[in-house]
Amino acid sequence: MTPMPPIDLRAKLARIAETWTPRVIAELNDYQVKLVKLQGDFVWHTHDDTDELFLVIDGEMEIAFRDGAVRVRPGELYVVPRGREHITRAPAGCQALIIEPRGVLNTGDAGGALTAPQDAWI
Amino acid sequence: MTPMPPIDLRAKLARIAETWTPRVIAELNDYQVKLVKLQGDFVWHTHDDTDELFLVIDGEMEIAFRDGAVRVRPGELYVVPRGREHITRAPAGCQALIIEPRGVLNTGDAGGALTAPQDAWI
Repeated sequence: MTPMPPIDLRAKLARIAETWTPRVIAELNDYQVKLVKLQGDFVWHTHDDTDELFLVIDGEMEIAFRDGAVRVRPGELYVVPRGREHITRAPAGCQALIIEPRGVLNTGDAGGALTAPQDAWI
Repeated sequence: MTPMPPIDLRAKLARIAETWTPRVIAELNDYQVKLVKLQGDFVWHTHDDTDELFLVIDGEMEIAFRDGAVRVRPGELYVVPRGREHITRAPAGCQALIIEPRGVLNTGDAGGALTAPQDAWI
């Protein structure tokens, strides 16, 4: 079969209108690669069973824990360890790539209005 | 505990001297995030048990299969499906991020002189 074409991150991002709604662009075994636009504050939440990888593409995000915060800029990645309560914030907006196992909810244990649909591909 | 700082991909790449020697920069559960410098041709090989994710940071790489090839440029990602024989090539040089399960050999089933040490962190 003819190889699939590469996936252009910026072209995919241009197709995302809403903030805080991760869209799946690829799978790696049972992991999903997602793109998300962040703007403002998300919600405090925890993923008890998995780490979560963020790679910033444009803009800047803050990942805050109860005991400190980090700023993540374009070309930087961050792995939020499983079980650590955190909130993501992007006052000026941010575009990021996320990798985590298939089936992980964006709001983790917190639920609520910002919980995005699962397995939404672009 | 104080949060770990973010990981700057270009700063890590600047610390890699050799080509074809993936260096680990982070772990996501039982997956490893690696950086590699490519120059010239690698070897034909297959990973029977896992997909392999490439994200190009600088330069350009070709991923060739027996039935076709793709060119992957900065800001593009590619997932090589498990079990598909492939070779990576970068005539003009390339810097890329790789994600795959811990323990995957760079040369897959092929072995040989280009087989890099496992679990080498920078």
